[in-house]
Formats: sequence, structure tokens, C-alpha cells
Amino acid sequence: LYNLQDRDFPVTCPDASRCSFVLSSLPNPKVNLFMQRLRYPLAMADVAVIAGSASDGEIVSKATSALDEQGVSYDYQVLSAHRDPEELAAYVKNSEARVFIAVAGLSAALPGVVASLTEKPVIGVPVAAGTLGGLDALLAIVQMPRGAPVACVGIGNGANAAHLAVRILKA
Amino acid sequence: LYNLQDRDFPVTCPDASRCSFVLSSLPNPKVNLFMQRLRYPLAMADVAVIAGSASDGEIVSKATSALDEQGVSYDYQVLSAHRDPEELAAYVKNSEARVFIAVAGLSAALPGVVASLTEKPVIGVPVAAGTLGGLDALLAIVQMPRGAPVACVGIGNGANAAHLAVRILKA
Amino acid sequence: LYNLQDRDFPVTCPDASRCSFVLSSLPNPKVNLFMQRLRYPLAMADVAVIAGSASDGEIVSKATSALDEQGVSYDYQVLSAHRDPEELAAYVKNSEARVFIAVAGLSAALPGVVASLTEKPVIGVPVAAGTLGGLDALLAIVQMPRGAPVACVGIGNGANAAHLAVRILKA
Amino acid sequence: LYNLQDRDFPVTCPDASRCSFVLSSLPNPKVNLFMQRLRYPLAMADVAVIAGSASDGEIVSKATSALDEQGVSYDYQVLSAHRDPEELAAYVKNSEARVFIAVAGLSAALPGVVASLTEKPVIGVPVAAGTLGGLDALLAIVQMPRGAPVACVGIGNGANAAHLAVRILKA
Amino acid sequence: LYNLQDRDFPVTCPDASRCSFVLSSLPNPKVNLFMQRLRYPLAMADVAVIAGSASDGEIVSKATSALDEQGVSYDYQVLSAHRDPEELAAYVKNSEARVFIAVAGLSAALPGVVASLTEKPVIGVPVAAGTLGGLDALLAIVQMPRGAPVACVGIGNGANAAHLAVRILKA
Amino acid sequence: LYNLQDRDFPVTCPDASRCSFVLSSLPNPKVNLFMQRLRYPLAMADVAVIAGSASDGEIVSKATSALDEQGVSYDYQVLSAHRDPEELAAYVKNSEARVFIAVAGLSAALPGVVASLTEKPVIGVPVAAGTLGGLDALLAIVQMPRGAPVACVGIGNGANAAHLAVRILKA
Amino acid sequence: LYNLQDRDFPVTCPDASRCSFVLSSLPNPKVNLFMQRLRYPLAMADVAVIAGSASDGEIVSKATSALDEQGVSYDYQVLSAHRDPEELAAYVKNSEARVFIAVAGLSAALPGVVASLTEKPVIGVPVAAGTLGGLDALLAIVQMPRGAPVACVGIGNGANAAHLAVRILKA
Amino acid sequence: LYNLQDRDFPVTCPDASRCSFVLSSLPNPKVNLFMQRLRYPLAMADVAVIAGSASDGEIVSKATSALDEQGVSYDYQVLSAHRDPEELAAYVKNSEARVFIAVAGLSAALPGVVASLTEKPVIGVPVAAGTLGGLDALLAIVQMPRGAPVACVGIGNGANAAHLAVRILKA
Repeated sequence: LYNLQDRDFPVTCPDASRCSFVLSSLPNPKVNLFMQRLRYPLAMADVAVIAGSASDGEIVSKATSALDEQGVSYDYQVLSAHRDPEELAAYVKNSEARVFIAVAGLSAALPGVVASLTEKPVIGVPVAAGTLGGLDALLAIVQMPRGAPVACVGIGNGANAAHLAVRILKA
Repeated sequence: LYNLQDRDFPVTCPDASRCSFVLSSLPNPKVNLFMQRLRYPLAMADVAVIAGSASDGEIVSKATSALDEQGVSYDYQVLSAHRDPEELAAYVKNSEARVFIAVAGLSAALPGVVASLTEKPVIGVPVAAGTLGGLDALLAIVQMPRGAPVACVGIGNGANAAHLAVRILKA
Repeated sequence: LYNLQDRDFPVTCPDASRCSFVLSSLPNPKVNLFMQRLRYPLAMADVAVIAGSASDGEIVSKATSALDEQGVSYDYQVLSAHRDPEELAAYVKNSEARVFIAVAGLSAALPGVVASLTEKPVIGVPVAAGTLGGLDALLAIVQMPRGAPVACVGIGNGANAAHLAVRILKA
Repeated sequence: LYNLQDRDFPVTCPDASRCSFVLSSLPNPKVNLFMQRLRYPLAMADVAVIAGSASDGEIVSKATSALDEQGVSYDYQVLSAHRDPEELAAYVKNSEARVFIAVAGLSAALPGVVASLTEKPVIGVPVAAGTLGGLDALLAIVQMPRGAPVACVGIGNGANAAHLAVRILKA
Repeated sequence: LYNLQDRDFPVTCPDASRCSFVLSSLPNPKVNLFMQRLRYPLAMADVAVIAGSASDGEIVSKATSALDEQGVSYDYQVLSAHRDPEELAAYVKNSEARVFIAVAGLSAALPGVVASLTEKPVIGVPVAAGTLGGLDALLAIVQMPRGAPVACVGIGNGANAAHLAVRILKA
Repeated sequence: LYNLQDRDFPVTCPDASRCSFVLSSLPNPKVNLFMQRLRYPLAMADVAVIAGSASDGEIVSKATSALDEQGVSYDYQVLSAHRDPEELAAYVKNSEARVFIAVAGLSAALPGVVASLTEKPVIGVPVAAGTLGGLDALLAIVQMPRGAPVACVGIGNGANAAHLAVRILKA
Repeated sequence: LYNLQDRDFPVTCPDASRCSFVLSSLPNPKVNLFMQRLRYPLAMADVAVIAGSASDGEIVSKATSALDEQGVSYDYQVLSAHRDPEELAAYVKNSEARVFIAVAGLSAALPGVVASLTEKPVIGVPVAAGTLGGLDALLAIVQMPRGAPVACVGIGNGANAAHLAVRILKA
Repeated sequence: LYNLQDRDFPVTCPDASRCSFVLSSLPNPKVNLFMQRLRYPLAMADVAVIAGSASDGEIVSKATSALDEQGVSYDYQVLSAHRDPEELAAYVKNSEARVFIAVAGLSAALPGVVASLTEKPVIGVPVAAGTLGGLDALLAIVQMPRGAPVACVGIGNGANAAHLAVRILKA
């Protein structure tokens, strides 16, 4: 499973007609499961926004509002690095986005895990989810080992994640 | 790939004769790659010790020395959550160990990622790898989200990871 | 003293016939005092949950709810490492639990003291009881000296303590 | 055991002639064990200095030097709250000292445990034993729960512990 | 001024008849000023409680309540180390108290300044007065230089200051 | 000054023959001063690396080594946000680079100031220049106000700044 | 632009009649833009108070109230170091104030940038704007590199900024 | 004592001939004691540099070197807020300096105490004297209560204290 001729992960098909052949030939029901589990259907978008938890929604909306204002297309999903590792991998590897924004609190492994699944730029947004004001998430996101960079923005600063994504898209 | 009849990940074969049939039928060379990349051949052991980086060796040796003293068998591999995500997943899912010890510094996602790949107990050892005395790794390891628990011990305290593993094995 | 038929304090009698003489001759009312002071009668349970203060109840209930969900039996007592050292020792040494969960804030010596009283695995849950967001309790619980390990989970994360206990029970 | 006529713990006898009767009548070999385990014979002293680990010796010597300069008698023992809980209890309960100085690093439960074993003033000295500059020990020592006070001095400041003891002795 | 026959500071007279001679012979009106500025008349008491600011009252009341419960006499004044240095010096030098409790937030110089004005034991209580949870006051109080010891208790833990004072009075 | 026909800042001329006309017609000697003050002649490069101080050289070389390895062209200058504000503005506005890497310690205003001078992506590298392990620089770089985003990487992690720049160039 | 006969920045004219000649001869509309963007007309004042954001108003009013009480004249503007760098430079260089008070949160580059634009004393006031209690702003303001000093006061302590300004004006 | 005609503290006489009358008429030997205790004779200087301990000399020399470079006169004394409170008060009140620089580590009460003894501007320099990198001294110096402002510069940044003093002298 997680395997189709020449790629490692299930094809996701925003346009069903383009994928019907592929899907019908798939022996593995997990692909559909994956597609059903996504909060929203996978969109063709320049930016992929992923939150580690639905409770990060307030910070996510700061990012998506700023992207809306700038007319940048985005896709938004809730996928946990720890609870949904396989769906996350499938999503990241199938996404056509040029930039990822990953929003997470506490141990906040999400941005780093995304950065290990793609060669595209990944922006991490620490969330103040616990009692330490987000210092935990900030350090977890920014202190990545050599070779797996995450572009960290300020604690809870979803807007700056969007502004940074716009700069990257224009670079 | 990553798929064999009844399991999700490549069979690892401490006893080659037992696996030759399986391996010869594998169309995917990645399995061998994975087996070659492991620092040491996978051992039948009660404890699996994983370091995120070879530079964590000093802390690892505190753990393995204490395991040696207590006569507990262990397997040791260097596998990064960010640089070797697929090998790590294969290793964890194939390991016969009853307890995992994961040693990591900085963002220290390793213990949490291992905890998301297995239902077995995972002990995390934060390493003081950067300039913050290991506070970054401590918070990244201990502040796991609900449902993916890591048993964190003190910064650099490989010995206590071993002692805790022994307690768990006897529980 | 501290001693009852089939349990450990002060004289421990795995073989009741060997202890009946001792127990009947006990002049020490402290045993009863101890049993009366326990918040709830001591239960036969797989997990023993101890809180350092009744005010830690909210965090404790996150642990016990998760244990309930998983169908794991537990015993819950409020015993302070500093105010009830003798009762605590009696309780820990008499408990039949296979795993301890100790919940404490501020100086949070409870998990470490429990770990020094038993060879079973001890999970510590730091509580954000004061004005430092629980950083004090986190460090006090996790930075144990070599030889007395505590398995620390995240600040206020009673649920993960339960999940970790379940993993240990199945290890 | 741990019980003689009117006290809970073994009598320690700086003057053997005064205790020989008691000791000979003791059925419990633990008393002797306890006395043998003490690093130095228990002295009649105004201040009892306890270190959690022999590695705290440098900080201890700052305290004992200052006590020497001021002509204050002291007794010094190495007893861990976590590894020697029973010996520690016996020592504290038998000590004739008027003030305790407890020196400890990391989780640093020692001063608090001593404070729970005696009604005398207990001075705690945090040691910078790990990678956090002693912040862990400082918080563990100073953030005691209501009712079990420890008089905390600065990190590594053994001299001030001695000066504070002198002030208390003269109060 | 600040000088009477054989002492450096104004006599304070809880019993006016005993002091009338002295006061009438004083050329310096500052003495009266000092006495008027004290919030309450100076009492004969075993413990002197000083707060750096009236806004520390909640923490002070935790200390005085505990002293009341234990039947210990105390005197309470609000005197700032920075705004009332001369009145503070006069008060400390004239006090008959055997132990001082100094309550302060932020820079929290008060306990240290009191310790430099007397040879009696000084207990410091850090107050969480600003936005750092009292970490500022904790460090300012506990990290005293060699020779000017302050006995620091937990942040906001007025009760433990009282309990420690009682232990010192009985030492 | 700071003004030429259609741009706000002095033209910088990697190819002197192309600029001689412009320079000779300039009434303002500051332009030359600016060009002389640059440590190295301004290069046509994809990445502009700016250090706040020559003492940051070790961290800078981690970035430039990684850029060299990846075959990415870069320009390197030492320009302080506080001591060279005008030269910095001229440099940033004239640079043809597509991505900036700004390396700074302590107050570390450099990355943020660069981000306010350009609409291109700016990567900030905190340096552990003082006694706080770089926590000061980390917070100063990452906690940017809304609208002026900086992509912060780990403390001293020049290599990841380069890897992130490569990802952005390819986005 | 930014240039008038003998000065680098636009003349600001509290008294329009005095400046009409200058303004009419200006070819550059930016001057007016600058003057229009200032929240209040530039005043002749001894102290210039600048806030990085309108949301810092509460802290600013602590400073201005204290200045009012002391009868010190001041000018107040909201100018961001990151969003209004050119207006800020123009304002600082044109101000006749003898002392600057700069109020900022988060990355808090404002006080340092002001200090790099003038040789006059600059007082920085950290604001607790995010989730870290203002520790970020405190470090960003106080840890300035050698040569660009900022006089930092306590977090949120606008009053002390005013008191310090008064001391400086009288020095 | 501490009183001469129209001032509160002993006259210090850089020019002995000018003071001989005054000194001969003094009934109080403390004045001489004070003058003898000063490390160096009190100088007529624009800046008074005070260190809390001789061990702060390295940081002090950064300040005095910078003052030398700028041709500013200064006086330097070692006086502890805690060990020499009376000499410190006498020194500050007698000094003719227009600005004070106070250098201190750990609890670092010196700058605040100086600020409470004079109405002149006081610059505080935190020293990294213990194991916390100077965070203790930084907070103690900067978090002064309302009404007693200290102008805090960076940890160990004696040079910036000098630069700030120069700015103030020119204000």
C-alpha cells in the first residue's frame, strides 16, 4: 500500500475524472480512508496549512485570513504528527503546494516532521497551548537539526507565517 | 513497498535463513538499503536504544552501560526522526523489543515519533546538544500531546533511562 | 506496627501463618491511623494514583478518566511526600499496583520519593500549581539522580500518564 | 523495629557507654547497619550538614569552612533522599543538631525531605549539578508546599548557608 | 541626628512614658517623622514582618495568619527599601524582634537590605508582582552575595515564612 | 542624496564600466563611502548573507559552506543594524539577491531591520553571543510584529539557514 | 529627498508660518506625507515618547502621566521600527527633544533603532505584549551591542521611564 | 553624626586644605573611617563608577576604558550594598558626579540602592557572576519599583554603560 507505479503515496485527485482509473485499480482501501479523513478535500493551492490539532484553529485563522487578503490560494488540514503519521506523510507527499505552514503547540513536532517529508520550504508557527506561554513549541520548532530546516515565526503569529509564505512565493 | 503480505514494513531478519524466501520475493530494493543503513545488525533484545545522532553517543553509553550491568539485552541504532523517517519507521515496527529508549537533543522529535509508531513504552532522554543546556530537548520530549506519551527522564541521564526500562520490564 | 496479615508494613508477611503472632501482639495504634487516613480504602488495582494535594484533583481526574476508558483498575489516594511521609511509605510498600502515577506541583518531590520506596515504574505528572506554569514541578520530577528514575510526562498531562501506564502494563 | 521505648528510631550513641545497654538489647541489626553506613560517626554538634551526593563536596566545604571560621560545631554526612531514605530518616530524627543544612542538586528533594522529618530549621543549598545552572535545584528546594518550609540560599552558596545557620543559632 | 547617647538610631517607644525624656531632649524632628510614618506603632514582638509595598498585603496576610495560628507575636510595617531607606534602617535597628520576614516583588531588594542592617535571621518572601511570575523576585532574594544571607521561601508562600520563623524561634 | 533618477539608493556596480557614467554624475560622496565600507565588493548572487558583527564569522561560515556545497551563489557583508543603519539600508535595497540571511546575536535587530527594508524572504540566525546561550537573540529574531516576518532557524544553525534558502530558491 | 540645505531630513514645523518658505521650495512630496502620518503634530518638547504600536498605549500613558505630574513637556508618536522605518528616522532626526522614551513589545527593536539614529539618551520600556510576559522585549531592548546603548527600565514600567527621563534632564 | 551644618553626610575633601576646618571640628570619627575605607581617594569626576565586589573588575574596566576614550572623568570605588551600606550612602551623597554607574552580580541590589540615595541618573550593569548567566542580576537591576528608576544596560556590557553616561552628560 502507499504505492502506485512510480510514486510512494496515494494519488490525491482534486479532479476525480483524472484519477478514476488510478483509484479503481488500487487494491488498497487505505487510500480512500486517507482521503476521507482529510478535513477538507485536498485543493490545488500554493500554500498548504496544517494544524496539529483542531484547537489550534484560532492561530490558523490568522494565517488564512492574511492569505485571503493577499489573494493566495491555500489548503487547510488538521493532521497530527503523532496521531496521524501516515496520513500526514501521504498528504505532504501528494500536496502540490509550493510552501507549507505547520501550526503546533507543546512538543510541536509537526513542522519538523513536515520538513523531513518534503524538500519545499516549511514555515512553523508555535502555539501557546500549555502553561509555558509557547516557549516549549518555539524551541521544538526552531531548534531543528542540521539539514531539516524549519522557518519559525513568532509564538501564535499566524499572520507572519502567511506574510512569509507570500515573500517566498514571490522570491 | 513497505508491504509484505501481512505486515506493513519490511521484515528484518536476525536469522537470514528464516527470511531468505521473503527477501528474494521482494521487488523493492529499499528493504536492503534499510538493512544496510542500520549501524549494527538488528538484534533480538528486550530494549531498543535509538539515538537521533551519532554525537549523542556519550549519553547512549550511560544507558547501555547500565543495561549491561543489569544483564538486559538491547539493540542500538542511530536513526534520525528528521533525516531517516522511513528507516526509523521500519526499524520501530520490526523491532521485537519490549521497551524503547530514544536519545535526542535540540528539537528532539525522536522519542515522540517513536511513540507514534509503536504501542510499546518509549523512554526519552533529552541531550544538552546546543547552547540552552538541553532545556529545548527536555520540553520537546516531555510536552507530548494527549495520546502519545513519552516517559521522559533527566537531561543527559542515560543511566536512569536504563533503570526505568528495567523497572518496566519487571512490572 | 504498620503491618497487616498479607501486606508489607513494618513486618511483612507473605505467609500469614508466620505473622499472626506478630499482628496480634502489636501494641501500635499507628497502623489503624494509617488505614483511616487513606482517603479511600486501599483497592486491589493495577495502577496506584497518588496526588500530593487534594488541589491536584483536576489533573488526577484526567488520568483516572483515561484509565477508566481503557478498563484499567486503579486506586487513588492523596498523600503528601512532605506532610505524610510515613503514611506514604506504608501505602507504597503495601500497594499491589504494578505501576504508580504520582501527581504533584511546586517542589513536587512526591514522584521521586515514591520511586525511592518501590522498584516498580513510577510516572510523574507535574502540576502548574504556582506562578511559574509548572516549570518548577517539571524540573523537580524529571531531574532525578541516577538510580531513582521517574517517567515524567507533560505538565498537567494526566491523560498521558494513564496512556503510559497502559503501555507499561502491556509491555 | 525503628523503635525503642519512647522514640521511633534507633538511638545513636556518640558516647558508647551511655548506649551499650540499649544496643545490646536491640533485636534489629539495622541499627548497626545504619551506624556503619554513616560516613563519619555522628557527632554532638549544633549544625548537621547533609549532602545528597559525595559530588556536592565542594559546596559543602564552603559551608563547613565558614562554620569553622565562626567556631560552630557541625556534623557532616552524605545521605541521599532517594537512595538512603531510611538511613536519612534515622539520622535526622537522632541528630541533636539545632539547625540542618542540606545540600543537593538536580531534583534536590533532600532539603524538603529533611524538613518533613524534623521540626527544626532546615537550610537548603541548591547545587548547579547538571546543565541548567542549578535552576532545577533552586526551584525544587524553594518551592516547598505550605507547612514544610525550607530556608533556601543562593545556588552553590554554601557560605551563606553557614552564615544563616549562625544567625539562627543566635536568634 | 539618628543618634542618641549610645545608639545610632532613634529610640522607638511603644510605651511613651518610658521615652518622653529622651524625645523631649531630641533636637531632631526626624525621629517623630519616622514614628509617624510607621503604619502601625512599633510593637514588642518576636517576628517583624515588613512589606515593600502595600500591594503585597495578600501575601503578608498569609504569613500573619499563620503566625496568629501559632500564637507568635509580630509587628507589621510597610517600608520600601528604595523609597524609605532611612525609615527602614531605623525600624530594623530598633526592632526587638528575633526574626524578620521581608516580603517583596520585582527587584525585591528589601530582604537583602534588611539582612545588611541586622545580624538576626531574615526570611524573604518573593511576590509575583509583575509579568514574570515572581521569578525576578525569587532570584533577587535568594542570590545574595556571601556574608549577607537571606532565607528564601517559595514565591508568594507567606505561610511558609511564618512556619520557618516558628522553627527558628524554637531552635 | 540616496537618490538616483528612478531609485531611492545608490547604484552599486559590480561591473565598474557599466556604472562609471552614473558615479561621475553623482553629487554625493556618500555613495562612494558606502561602497568602500562594504567588506567585499557587492556580488551578483542569489543569497545575501549579512552578519551584524565580524565576531559572528564562525556561524556565517556554517551558512556559506552549506551554500558552497549546494552551488548557490552568495554575497557576504558585515553590517550592523545599529552602527551602520544607512549603509545597511543601501545594501539591502541595492542587492539583487532573492533571499537574505541575517546573522546576529544579543538584541539581534538585524534580521528584522532587513525584513523592514525589503519584501524578499529574510532568514534570521540567532547567535549565542553573550551569557544567555542565545535565548536573547532567538526571541529578538523570532518574535517579530505582524507584517514584518523573519524566518528564524536554530541558535547558531547557519547550515539550516543555507538549507532553508535553497528550499526557498527552489519553491 | 530627505535633504534640505543643511540637514538630512525634512524640517518639521510646529509653527507653519516659520516653515512655509522651506516647504514651498521642497520638490519632494514625502515630507508632507511624513508630517501627515504623525499621529500628532510634532511638538517642541524635552522628551519624545515613541510607541511601536498603538496597542502599547496603556504603558505609554504611565510614562506621560508621570511626565505631566513633573511638569515635563513631551511629544508622543506611534512609529514602528519595522513598518515605518523612514518616518521614524525622520522623526528622530528632527526632534528637538533631549531624551527619547521608546516603548515596544515582542522583538522590540524600536529603542535600539532610535539609539542608532541619535546621540541623545534613549530609554527603552519593554511591553509584555505576547505570551512570554515581556521577557522577549526585555532582552531585545537591554542586550544592545557595544556602542548603541539603551537605558532599559522594567517590563511595563512606563512610570520609571518618565522618572529616569527627569533625572537625565536634571543631570 | 552623618551631619554637617547643611548636609546630611560627611564632607569628602579631594582638596584637604579646603576641608581641614570642617574635619577638625567633627566630633565623629566615622568620617575618617569612611574616607579610609574608600579604595581610592574620592575624585572630582563627572561619572561615579561603583562595583559591588572587587571581582566585578573586568566589567568595570570595560566601562572605565570607554570613559577614558571619550575623555570623561570618573571616580571608581568598590562598595557593597549589603556589606557596606553606610559607606555607600556616604559616598553617594557626597559625590559630585552627575551620573552613577553601578556594577553588580547575583542579587545585584547595588544600582537600586544607589538610585534610592540620589536623584541623579543611575546606570546599572548586570554581571554574570553565578551559574545563571547574569539573568538574576539583570532582573534585579531592571525590575525596579515605580519611583526608583535604574537605567539598565546589557549583561556585562560595561562599555555601553559608559556610552550611555556620555549621552546623558551631553543631554
